[in-house]
Amino acid sequence: MKFGGTSMAGTERIRRVAGIVRRQQEAGHEVAVVVSAMSGETDRLVNFCREANALYDPAEYDVVVASGEQVTAGLLALTLQALGCRARSWLGWQLPIHTDDAYAKARIGGIDTDAIRASMGGGEIAVIPGFQGLSPEGRITTLGRGGSDTSAVAVAAALKADRCDIYTDVDGVYTTDPRIVAKARKLKHVTFEEMLELASVGSKVLQTRSVSLAMKENVRVQVLSSFIDDDAPAADTLPGTMIVSEEELAEIQKGADVESQLITGIAADKNEAKVILTRVPDRPGAVATIFGPLAAANINVDMIIQNVGREHTDTDVTFTVPAADLARTQAVLEEAQGAIGYEKLTTDAKVAKISVVGVGMRSHAGVAATMFKALADRGINIQAISTSEIKTSVLIDADETELAVRVLHTAYGLDAA
Amino acid sequence: MKFGGTSMAGTERIRRVAGIVRRQQEAGHEVAVVVSAMSGETDRLVNFCREANALYDPAEYDVVVASGEQVTAGLLALTLQALGCRARSWLGWQLPIHTDDAYAKARIGGIDTDAIRASMGGGEIAVIPGFQGLSPEGRITTLGRGGSDTSAVAVAAALKADRCDIYTDVDGVYTTDPRIVAKARKLKHVTFEEMLELASVGSKVLQTRSVSLAMKENVRVQVLSSFIDDDAPAADTLPGTMIVSEEELAEIQKGADVESQLITGIAADKNEAKVILTRVPDRPGAVATIFGPLAAANINVDMIIQNVGREHTDTDVTFTVPAADLARTQAVLEEAQGAIGYEKLTTDAKVAKISVVGVGMRSHAGVAATMFKALADRGINIQAISTSEIKTSVLIDADETELAVRVLHTAYGLDAA
Repeated sequence: MKFGGTSMAGTERIRRVAGIVRRQQEAGHEVAVVVSAMSGETDRLVNFCREANALYDPAEYDVVVASGEQVTAGLLALTLQALGCRARSWLGWQLPIHTDDAYAKARIGGIDTDAIRASMGGGEIAVIPGFQGLSPEGRITTLGRGGSDTSAVAVAAALKADRCDIYTDVDGVYTTDPRIVAKARKLKHVTFEEMLELASVGSKVLQTRSVSLAMKENVRVQVLSSFIDDDAPAADTLPGTMIVSEEELAEIQKGADVESQLITGIAADKNEAKVILTRVPDRPGAVATIFGPLAAANINVDMIIQNVGREHTDTDVTFTVPAADLARTQAVLEEAQGAIGYEKLTTDAKVAKISVVGVGMRSHAGVAATMFKALADRGINIQAISTSEIKTSVLIDADETELAVRVLHTAYGLDAA
Repeated sequence: MKFGGTSMAGTERIRRVAGIVRRQQEAGHEVAVVVSAMSGETDRLVNFCREANALYDPAEYDVVVASGEQVTAGLLALTLQALGCRARSWLGWQLPIHTDDAYAKARIGGIDTDAIRASMGGGEIAVIPGFQGLSPEGRITTLGRGGSDTSAVAVAAALKADRCDIYTDVDGVYTTDPRIVAKARKLKHVTFEEMLELASVGSKVLQTRSVSLAMKENVRVQVLSSFIDDDAPAADTLPGTMIVSEEELAEIQKGADVESQLITGIAADKNEAKVILTRVPDRPGAVATIFGPLAAANINVDMIIQNVGREHTDTDVTFTVPAADLARTQAVLEEAQGAIGYEKLTTDAKVAKISVVGVGMRSHAGVAATMFKALADRGINIQAISTSEIKTSVLIDADETELAVRVLHTAYGLDAA
C-alpha cells in the first residue's frame, strides 16, 4: 500500500490512513506501507535548498529532502501502534534500498527484504518512507520528485506482493485532471503504455518510472482514493483504476458494448522549461556538444527542435528540461559555450506541455490534425510538437494550459454526459 | 562549533552561521560544526508524535524528531558550499555516533572519527546534526531535548579539539534569564559545577549532560552569541562566557578586586510536573516499589518529599518528573498500583522549579533562609524544597515564576547597577 502526500498531510489524515491499513491486515493480508512526505513538505525543503545554494550539491539536497518521508514513516508507525497494531518503520538506509549514486534522481538497484519479511511474517506492519535509498558510498539518495510511487512498486516487486495499491487524493485515473475539466471521466482500466505517457507528461497520478517498473516487474497496480468511508469494503473490491497490459484490456473489453475511443486521456505539464540556443554552428557533431554535457549532468532533455538559420551556416536549437534543473542547465551550457559555439542562451519557464494519449491512436490517422485545429481555433500558439506511437504533445504558453485542456477534452469527445 | 536552533532558524540565519564558520576556517582552524534543528521545529515534530500516539514508542519518536537536525545539517553544508568552502554533512548513523538503546534519551558510547578526520584534514568542513546517534540494533536514537550541546562536546572530545564554541541566542551565561530580569548581568566565567546546576534547572544555555561531559573529558567550552557583526573578530577573542574549573576560577579572580558573590545565578524551570501518591503503605521497600519501575522506564525523578500520614501506617509521596514524561509516568504508576498499594494518584504540570546557585554557598550559611523569606514576603507558596552543596531549589506555582526570579535576583544583590 502506498499513500501520497495529501493522504499524509497531518496527524488526523494519518489516522485515516492507519485505519485503512489496519482493515487490510484484518482482512488477512501481510502489509507493507510506503509513504510520501506531508503535502507541501517536500516543496518547503526544496525551497530551503534553493535558498541555501541555487546550484545545490545533490548529495546534500538529498539529506535535506529525504527527511519529509522519514517523519511520516515514523508517524504512521506510531499511529498504527495507537490503533493496536504492531508496526515499525524501516528507513531507506536501514533495509537498505540500494540505489546508484545519481543523487536527487537515483535509481533503485535492489532491496534487501530478509529483515522486513521476517518482521511482516511475525505480524508486524512494515512502514517504509518512499523516495529514498542508500548510495554505494553509504549516503542518502532520493529518487526524484514523485519517487515514492517507484519505491512502492519496487518494494511490491521485491516482496513479490499480490498487489500494489496506490492511494492518492483522486479515486482513480481520469481522462484529464478533474480540477481543470469538471466533465472528466474516471477510467476503469488503463494500459501500462498509456499510463506511462500520461504520467510522463504530468497527469500527476503516478510517476513514470513506477509504471515502467510495474510493467517490467509485472506488478499489479491499483490506483484508488484514500478519502473513503471508514466502513468502506476492503481494497480488493474498491472501484479504483486498474493498470493492465494492452492484451488484458482487449480481453476485458471483448464483447462488451464499448465504443472504441481514439484518445484515452489528456495531460498537462507545467514543470518544464524551454531553452533556446541561438546561432549554433551547423556542423556534424554540434548537437552532441549540447546534449552530451547535459546528459553527463543527469539532466533529462525532452522536446528538441532545430531550426536552420537564414544563411544555412548556423541553426537555432530549442529544447525543454525539467524546470527544477533550469539553473543547472544554464550553468552547464554557459560553461560549454566555447565548445558548442552558440551566440545566445534564452530560457522560458512559463510554458506547458499538453498531450493527448491513447492506444487507439495506433490505428487511426488524423489525431494530431484534430489537436492542431482545435487549438488554432482558440488562438493558442504552438511552440513545439513531439509525437510517439500513442501520444501527441505540444508546448504552449503556461497561461493557456487550462483552456487548451478543456478545448481538447471536448474536441476528442471525452466530456462526460 | 555548535549552533543552536535560534541561530539556525531559516536560510538567512544559516548564511550568517556559515559566515562565522568560514571565518574560523580562514583563521587556520580545522572545523567541525554541530547543529540544532531550526527553532520551533523539534516542538512541531514532538507534537506530531503526541498527536499520533500519546504513549509513543520512543524508537519511532526518534525517527521523527531526528529529522530536524538532518535538515539543518544538509542546509549548512549547502550554504558553506555557496560561500566557496568545501563541506559535507555526516549524519549520526553515518559517522556513526554510537549510543545505547535508550531511545529518546540515549547516551553516547563512542564516536568513530576516522572518516571525518580524513575529510577535515583534506580541508573539508564537517557538518554534524546534533541530538542524534545510532543504537546497537542499527536504529536512530536521540539524546533528549537539548542533546545537541552534548553532541558538540562529545565530538570535540572525540576529535581532541582545542576548543568547543557553543553559539547560542544569548551572548554568554547570565545571572538569570535576561528576558525575565532586565538587570541580569553577563558572567565572564562560571565553574563547571555551577553551570551544571544552572543547566539542570533550566537556565537553557547548555544542557546538563554536555557540561558533565565537558568536565569529565576536559573540553574547554565557550558560550557565545551567533548574532555578531560580520566583521567581528575570530571567536578566540570574543567576550563570551568561559566555563572553567573551580580552581581556575579562583586563579583568575586572585588579586582582582572581585567582591565575593554568594550566588552566581538564578534559574527557573517550567518543564517539570508534580506527582502525588496518596496513602502509600508505610513499610520497608515501599519507596523502591515506586521508583524502581520509573527507573526501569528511563524516567528521571527529581525532587522527592515524603509526608507521614496521620495514623503513621501510610504516607504521601510527592515527586517531580519531566513534564514530557508525565503521561508515561502515570501509565507506569497505574500499572504498578497493586504493587505500590497507594490510594490515589494526582498530578500537576503547572509548577516551576526556582533555583539559586553559587560555589560561594559552600562557605556561607543563611542562603536558603534568605530565599524562603524573600518568597514569603511576596506571598509565594513553596510546594517542595531540595538542596545540594551549591544549589537550593524550590517548587512553586508556574504562574509565579517570573515574579520569584525577580524577587530573588534583587534579594541576592545580583541586579546590575
